[in-house]
Amino acid sequence: MSGNTLGTLFTLTSFGESHGAAIGGIVDGCPPGLDLSEEDLQIDLDRRKPGTSKHVTQRNEEDKVEILSGVFEGKTTGAPIGFIIRNTDQRSQDYSKIKDVFRPGHADYTYAHKYGLRDYRGGGRSSARETAVRVAAGAIAKKWLLKKYGIKIRAYLSQMGTVNIPFKNWEDVNQNPFFCPNLDQVPELEKYLDSIRADRDSVGAKITVVAENLPVGLGEPVFGRLDAEIAYAMMSINAVKGVDIGEGFGSVIQKGSEHGDELTPQGFLTNNAGGILGGISTGQPIIAHVAFKPTSSIPQDRKSINTKGEAVLMQTTGRHDPCVAIRATPIVEAMLALVIIDQALRHRAQNADVIPHTPKI
Amino acid sequence: MSGNTLGTLFTLTSFGESHGAAIGGIVDGCPPGLDLSEEDLQIDLDRRKPGTSKHVTQRNEEDKVEILSGVFEGKTTGAPIGFIIRNTDQRSQDYSKIKDVFRPGHADYTYAHKYGLRDYRGGGRSSARETAVRVAAGAIAKKWLLKKYGIKIRAYLSQMGTVNIPFKNWEDVNQNPFFCPNLDQVPELEKYLDSIRADRDSVGAKITVVAENLPVGLGEPVFGRLDAEIAYAMMSINAVKGVDIGEGFGSVIQKGSEHGDELTPQGFLTNNAGGILGGISTGQPIIAHVAFKPTSSIPQDRKSINTKGEAVLMQTTGRHDPCVAIRATPIVEAMLALVIIDQALRHRAQNADVIPHTPKI
Amino acid sequence: MSGNTLGTLFTLTSFGESHGAAIGGIVDGCPPGLDLSEEDLQIDLDRRKPGTSKHVTQRNEEDKVEILSGVFEGKTTGAPIGFIIRNTDQRSQDYSKIKDVFRPGHADYTYAHKYGLRDYRGGGRSSARETAVRVAAGAIAKKWLLKKYGIKIRAYLSQMGTVNIPFKNWEDVNQNPFFCPNLDQVPELEKYLDSIRADRDSVGAKITVVAENLPVGLGEPVFGRLDAEIAYAMMSINAVKGVDIGEGFGSVIQKGSEHGDELTPQGFLTNNAGGILGGISTGQPIIAHVAFKPTSSIPQDRKSINTKGEAVLMQTTGRHDPCVAIRATPIVEAMLALVIIDQALRHRAQNADVIPHTPKI
Amino acid sequence: MSGNTLGTLFTLTSFGESHGAAIGGIVDGCPPGLDLSEEDLQIDLDRRKPGTSKHVTQRNEEDKVEILSGVFEGKTTGAPIGFIIRNTDQRSQDYSKIKDVFRPGHADYTYAHKYGLRDYRGGGRSSARETAVRVAAGAIAKKWLLKKYGIKIRAYLSQMGTVNIPFKNWEDVNQNPFFCPNLDQVPELEKYLDSIRADRDSVGAKITVVAENLPVGLGEPVFGRLDAEIAYAMMSINAVKGVDIGEGFGSVIQKGSEHGDELTPQGFLTNNAGGILGGISTGQPIIAHVAFKPTSSIPQDRKSINTKGEAVLMQTTGRHDPCVAIRATPIVEAMLALVIIDQALRHRAQNADVIPHTPKI
Repeated sequence: MSGNTLGTLFTLTSFGESHGAAIGGIVDGCPPGLDLSEEDLQIDLDRRKPGTSKHVTQRNEEDKVEILSGVFEGKTTGAPIGFIIRNTDQRSQDYSKIKDVFRPGHADYTYAHKYGLRDYRGGGRSSARETAVRVAAGAIAKKWLLKKYGIKIRAYLSQMGTVNIPFKNWEDVNQNPFFCPNLDQVPELEKYLDSIRADRDSVGAKITVVAENLPVGLGEPVFGRLDAEIAYAMMSINAVKGVDIGEGFGSVIQKGSEHGDELTPQGFLTNNAGGILGGISTGQPIIAHVAFKPTSSIPQDRKSINTKGEAVLMQTTGRHDPCVAIRATPIVEAMLALVIIDQALRHRAQNADVIPHTPKI
Repeated sequence: MSGNTLGTLFTLTSFGESHGAAIGGIVDGCPPGLDLSEEDLQIDLDRRKPGTSKHVTQRNEEDKVEILSGVFEGKTTGAPIGFIIRNTDQRSQDYSKIKDVFRPGHADYTYAHKYGLRDYRGGGRSSARETAVRVAAGAIAKKWLLKKYGIKIRAYLSQMGTVNIPFKNWEDVNQNPFFCPNLDQVPELEKYLDSIRADRDSVGAKITVVAENLPVGLGEPVFGRLDAEIAYAMMSINAVKGVDIGEGFGSVIQKGSEHGDELTPQGFLTNNAGGILGGISTGQPIIAHVAFKPTSSIPQDRKSINTKGEAVLMQTTGRHDPCVAIRATPIVEAMLALVIIDQALRHRAQNADVIPHTPKI
Repeated sequence: MSGNTLGTLFTLTSFGESHGAAIGGIVDGCPPGLDLSEEDLQIDLDRRKPGTSKHVTQRNEEDKVEILSGVFEGKTTGAPIGFIIRNTDQRSQDYSKIKDVFRPGHADYTYAHKYGLRDYRGGGRSSARETAVRVAAGAIAKKWLLKKYGIKIRAYLSQMGTVNIPFKNWEDVNQNPFFCPNLDQVPELEKYLDSIRADRDSVGAKITVVAENLPVGLGEPVFGRLDAEIAYAMMSINAVKGVDIGEGFGSVIQKGSEHGDELTPQGFLTNNAGGILGGISTGQPIIAHVAFKPTSSIPQDRKSINTKGEAVLMQTTGRHDPCVAIRATPIVEAMLALVIIDQALRHRAQNADVIPHTPKI
Repeated sequence: MSGNTLGTLFTLTSFGESHGAAIGGIVDGCPPGLDLSEEDLQIDLDRRKPGTSKHVTQRNEEDKVEILSGVFEGKTTGAPIGFIIRNTDQRSQDYSKIKDVFRPGHADYTYAHKYGLRDYRGGGRSSARETAVRVAAGAIAKKWLLKKYGIKIRAYLSQMGTVNIPFKNWEDVNQNPFFCPNLDQVPELEKYLDSIRADRDSVGAKITVVAENLPVGLGEPVFGRLDAEIAYAMMSINAVKGVDIGEGFGSVIQKGSEHGDELTPQGFLTNNAGGILGGISTGQPIIAHVAFKPTSSIPQDRKSINTKGEAVLMQTTGRHDPCVAIRATPIVEAMLALVIIDQALRHRAQNADVIPHTPKI
């Protein structure tokens, strides 16, 4: 692979730049017989799409998905599912003034040096727009996991800049533009982000994702561990700089007597492990945290160089998210779903004879 | 793959349990013409091996590697490099009393449920012993990277429990049993770990790894990003619960104006990115941090269940590391080397025509 | 993968059914900087498309390709190349009468049992229509190979039924509807195929493909041999039942003194090997032969069963090729190109340091 | 991969040269719970090993396999199965005189150019000795397939040079050194091969392999077809120049009315397809034919060049098989078993929900 395919048995291969004709993908390995329509994909695409509040980019992408294959009479057939999303709001002129400069904190510089040429129209392939494809594919995975195992995958914003957001309940998450799990904290977030924007700045954030109802046994050690694949999938999202599982970096200061989750006949007493031991699911909820850096594109002067290597001062204007993590909530869910479905399929390949006898605690 | 192969072009396939006849691996895709001897692998194996100080397990594994193929007249031939390490200190009797119980915080429980049977001899395949194979393979990768690109990969202990360890210098790292980069802090660490051990407990830690001299351009977006593969590789190490790159989780509270590394004709001014933008190396040092949980095996009573599902109280005696992260320093280096060499080979496959023209800042 | 991706570094992932909205694919790993337009793909698509003579199916597919990504300002960018071909002539009604019966020699039966459902609209995913995607991707590979190494890949019809067609010259191949390398034999072929059609029957054929100007050294033993990947690629084409290289099945009756190609300072004296020794290219032309079975869809009564398992008599009417191999000539070229480009990229990954020193005889 | 791993879920990674310390491999993905001992592997290794009659090489390799991991208390654990076979009869001196010359028909020339160096000790990695590893791995696959599905995989010599060998019965196959399915033809084969050897020559041959009792549904279209993977696996065996399935190259002259296998409520009436339609198993026996070229190493003068590019005359003396195909019979079985088990595991991953409802005709 040259980096645009994810997965082993349930794979997503993705294509498309922010300012090309379309983005899209191919989901291969979806089991046959799943009820599926474009609407199933659209729901999550709409959660991610720009322009839904003043707190996210005002770009006006419709993000309308079209399924081209793999579904017949409303059911998946086992054949690859091809889908595209046309790009409709390509204001390439926005980018003409950055054509010859590298934006600090951006992939401009590395893409230009890796490939020897410059697609200066927005982020090109490195644009967050590409993640819409993941959301569409993740919606397929989520649907199958829910139907087949009752697995539920949900994410929320757990920190924005210095504002910590303790989990309150899932109901609140989809009722505010921040995916904040506590409606009471929304005014604080609005105020905080307004001040960031007023400073012509941006800020980082953290998203927490939870998968419930997993069976014991998903994960292919020693390299294809469930946690390793989660780390890989999350770190492949634009702007992500860190991933941890369960207590994660917090376990650095824990004692063994505190961290190791004790077992009883009724189940585990705690979940410091975040639902994974030895790279394999324990049956407890999977919990992962994902750190997003602040948006690199900010409308204030920054030191940079142009393509000739000369010093320049530059501002990135245009329509950018002040906090990229906000719209990333559905992406994080999608990535976790893509990892879990692939592991579930691999698990039943090798261990089908064991599965029926698997007790659950 | 069923989880025991890492990499695309430079691959490591690993086998072996802690109490079987041997562990070993096959490195496939090593370029021909590299000077290589068993001694090259042994150096790093000796850094990882047990029994080198009172602060690590007193198991007495010789960890003597034998290369079986792929090297002729002192040079790699391009053929796969098979190697084995015989297990010599298999005190299986140590484990007889835990044969029917699941150790809290261990992979016993998940392996037993996944595979439907129990290899109760120590960790079996989930044992940290398996990582010796990675260290051996990583030594090959490190040698090639150093020779070919001058890339240097080094790790150190940056935190143990509540003791933070700021980097002082590389010279100190290999002169103390903790891989601590500051000899002045060693007494503090000794005292700290002695007290942990006296409490019959264990503690977590953090390791920082740095790769210097990378060319611009390594990384295969959008999924095979350099950072994503680093996250995957690190999270696949036993006891790892978190990985971040550059400022990592610290970027959650950063502003865009602070995080985005500015460029000048002389190079980047800062390295918040940890040497990676858009999943591709910038040419700056790669910096990653890895969180290790405390050792699960501790000699104090813990609640658990036996294979019949009945409640038990258990202690794990035997010879266990009070802080698994210590001996993990060479493993972290090895994993980073394995990721970088694979990316370097893939990069020159696709972009060979671009590479000679790549300017370096 | 679930079977719809080909290749390791230069990959094609394909989607689409004969009677869905569109077919298409994603080419990942194409090196940046290659001049590429839709016209480059269209040329080969037009060579494969139906309705070009009375000897092939009269279906009226326009086979118009649209490139959606990966090309900017006329050059490949290194990003994945997504493309689609809309299906325009979907006469699904043709298929209503075969909805409940399995066509002898067809994949209806195996698909229905594998996936547990029936896409009765033509061949669905098993339709030869899917191969248009391969032809489009192969055109990209062919262009790069020609530009970069001067490698030329051409195929011709070398046998149709009992009519043997000795190679005369390449010029003739594209000047007749049979891809016959000797215009003098065209009337004989026309007469032969007319009589087959008059008998409401079909017939098998053999295609020979030649790649010239390969460097020595392509092929990744021991499993990823060049010949093994050629065999894989060819056998994956619809209706193919056999592949051989060089003297192929003819070598069964050869003596070692006859088969082994002798070397002289001026080069090899013969090419029984078909350009491959030990799975690696010798620098001589690669020569492979591919056997196609006769079209299964014929308009005469055949014994079969319906989906209830009851005996039926059925005819397949509709617009079918009397000899599927004819239009397969560009497909065979495409598959060989896809294999060679992938091997070429892998070769320079691992052996880049060796390549400049490779002498050529 | 760099060519030394086969398979997707059930993988074999192989290492070792003819004159190194050992050859061996790692089987990853074997389902847990299979009874397995070294003896299971040894049976097939002994069928392949040299020196069993005057008609094969007189090299004296013991081919004694040692399993190093993945089996505990007589059962596979789901962990990778590492195994080695020490090389015991390394008469490297035999090869000193060919150190600087390329043997016609051999991989010497291509390996030297690909890798830039020469392992002149016998075939090195290109030696047929490497296939012992495949036989060992194949024995594991065969055992699981037989136990789990009742699938039986058996091969026989179907042609040697000009001597055609119609199938008579399976009992005879293991009772003669040629794997000939008709003991009555053995004297003819002996006489024929004696005359070849008297002429200081060698000869090609054809092997036919049959797999019985496959379920309907194995094969992952469109690229991972069952027939494509069989072609790949067979063509990866040393000296193989052709593969066909069912009627294979014979279908070139067949009519559709003759080739297409008719169905009745009692099953298929014929098996021209060789058990595969659309790349998926039909439930009928899989039948494949494999063409082997004559041994390249013959003790008569052949024109060649040395490493300086100068003309030489050379003979290959030493202990070579006059017909390499003979000992290849167990290899062909092993390769088919490795393909089928991998497809079976993939099939139940994606289609587990369909499988229980699969009717069998």
